[in-house]
Order: sequence, then structure tokens, then C-alpha cells
Amino acid sequence: MVRQERAVRTREALIRSAAEVFHHEGFTAASLTLISSRAGVSNGALHFHFASKAVLADAVESAAAGVLQTITGPRGPRAPSTLQRLVDATHELARHLQQDVVLRAGFELSGEACRAARTDLRLRWHAWVTAMVDRAARHGELRENVAQEGVAAAVVAATVGFEVLGTRDEVWLSRRTVSQFWLLLLPTLASHSFLGCLEAEGSAPR
Amino acid sequence: MVRQERAVRTREALIRSAAEVFHHEGFTAASLTLISSRAGVSNGALHFHFASKAVLADAVESAAAGVLQTITGPRGPRAPSTLQRLVDATHELARHLQQDVVLRAGFELSGEACRAARTDLRLRWHAWVTAMVDRAARHGELRENVAQEGVAAAVVAATVGFEVLGTRDEVWLSRRTVSQFWLLLLPTLASHSFLGCLEAEGSAPR
Repeated sequence: MVRQERAVRTREALIRSAAEVFHHEGFTAASLTLISSRAGVSNGALHFHFASKAVLADAVESAAAGVLQTITGPRGPRAPSTLQRLVDATHELARHLQQDVVLRAGFELSGEACRAARTDLRLRWHAWVTAMVDRAARHGELRENVAQEGVAAAVVAATVGFEVLGTRDEVWLSRRTVSQFWLLLLPTLASHSFLGCLEAEGSAPR
Repeated sequence: MVRQERAVRTREALIRSAAEVFHHEGFTAASLTLISSRAGVSNGALHFHFASKAVLADAVESAAAGVLQTITGPRGPRAPSTLQRLVDATHELARHLQQDVVLRAGFELSGEACRAARTDLRLRWHAWVTAMVDRAARHGELRENVAQEGVAAAVVAATVGFEVLGTRDEVWLSRRTVSQFWLLLLPTLASHSFLGCLEAEGSAPR
């Protein structure tokens, strides 16, 4: 293996290992020795790539932000309407949180009391949801008199709740839980002409 | 001051001080020396009352469970219907989370990765919300075909989201945010005859 390629793989292994240890033990308690040994590298190699635990946490957050970007970015799930895209993205987020420890640790680091998050994923998610709700309103997808900021807040609060509760019990991240939330919310949210076309279970195969 | 009374006050001061330090630094990073000095007592006095940081955290959780009990128990807010009682309790919970660091730290300890919570406040809250939704259904307050478990999950996820996000920005715990959530949820949730009587802003003066 070329040296540069090996360095990239080591870095990725360390980020994944750090995410696992942060997730299980929290940022403060996480031991760098455990992180390097789980990644199969020496402590020296860890310090070659990351000057401190804080720098390693920044790298986990940054990798998690990349995953969030694939869910919310232009290459995210395609959907026939903006509201459907929002519904689909919440399902995608829940699915990735179940499967991807880097994403999960990235979100958890946003709430760490001891750390000033450089990339607050919950804030990024909130900004994206707000933009989607605004776009849905401009496209006539929302009922009249619906408070847009209230819609974004409800969606973000519920998804952050699923994320936090899902750490102890994965049923909170199931398709069923997310769908039931949308079944309750969509009828007061979506304009009459759009409501019939919306799928609370998500429009993408899962 | 009688010796016993002084011991009770010292214990309460330590619980409050521990809640503040757990809230600001997290359980793992929290220093017992800081906790005792903020409470104005010696390290020896702290250890006289609490054998370890884990025991102190259990005491914070237990005190927080007492606050939750006043919100959800028989002496909680009185309301003309079960659904209104549920709405009122979410407002009360948000208000107490803003003002009462012991309650806030108690909820946060439920999510601490390093600790097996003895009293998981989020689970207690979920159990109470589920019981209220069941009672509302029995009293004919819910629409037909509404999935009760989905209603409880949506309410719990959103309130846990408000709690977690409120740590960084108190607007999440404002009356306005909580009311907007209910304005979106109640129309799909409440039966026609009850909907007109429900106040999303809460029926109790705040």
C-alpha cells in the first residue's frame, strides 16, 4: 500500500474508533489509549494524526457533517415535493443514526457540556429544516396560517428527541416511530392539494 | 440551628451544587472539590453525606424525580380534560427546566453514557405521557384511528428535544415554542368535541 493511502486509512480508522468510544463513554471519559488500540494503531500514530482529543472530536464532527450533507445536500433523497423531501430526510437521518456510529457520535458531541462544538450538527439540521419549510411555503405546500418557525421547531425537536432517546432504545429511530410522527403532523401542516400525495413512511425504498 | 436541621440544609446545598456542576461540566468531568466549595462545605462534609460521585448523582436524580412528580402527580396542574392536563404538564415541565437546575441535571443524567441511571427521568416521563394518552382515549378525547403509542412517542420525543436543545438556547423551552407544537398536533389528535375546548398555550396562568 502506498504510504499516503495507508495514512488516509489510519486516519479513518481512528475517527471511527473515536466515534465508538465517545458514543459509549462520553467525550470526557474517553481514553486516547483505548481509541488507538481499537483502531489497531499505536498511541504515537494517533498523536501523529491528531494533536489532542479535542482535535479528534472535531474530526468526528466533521466526518458526521459529511454524512448529514449526503442526507440534506443536492444528492440527497429525491422527492416529488419539498415536504416529501423533508419527510424522507428525517427517515434517512434516523436510519443513518441507527447504522453509523460516526454520525451518532457527531450529534452527541453537539450536546457535550465540556466542549464548544465547532460544527454543531443539531444547529445545521435546524438550519436545513427551516430552509425546507420556507421553500415548502413558497411552493404553496403549507396550509395558510401555519407558523413556519413552529413547524421547523416541532420537526427539529422531535428528531433530536428520537436521536437522544435512540441511544438507549433503537425503537425511537425505527421507520414506524418516524412515520407515526408525520401521520400526526402532516394533516395540520400540508395544504389540501398536497396532503393526498404525501407519504408519511417516506417515498424512498428503505 | 439544630444539628439535624443543619444536616438537611447541607445535604440540599450539596445536591443543588452538584446539579449545577453536572449541568455545566457533565457528570464525568465534575469535580467533587468544586461541588463542595460551591456548596460552602468541606470535602469531608461532602463525603459524610455522599459516599461517591455516583451516589451524589443518584441523589440529584431522586430530587429531580420529586419535581417531576409535582408536575405529573395528583397535585399537578388541574385541567378540565386529560388532554389539557397533558398540554399543561408539558408547559410546566418546560418552565421548570428553565428555572430549576436540579430538574435539568436530573434529565441530563438520564442520557449520560458513563452511568447506569437508577431513576431514568425520560423513561418516567414517557410512562406518564403514555398513561395520559390512554386515559384520554378511554374518555373519548382522541379522534378515532389515532395510534395512541404514536401520540405518546411524538409528545415525548418533542419534549426531550426541547429539553436537550434548551440547554444551549432557552427559546426551546419558551411558552411560544411549546404552544406552537401543540397547535400543530392537537387538530389531528383531539376528537371534534374536545378540540374547541383545548388551549395549546396551557390552561394555567404562567
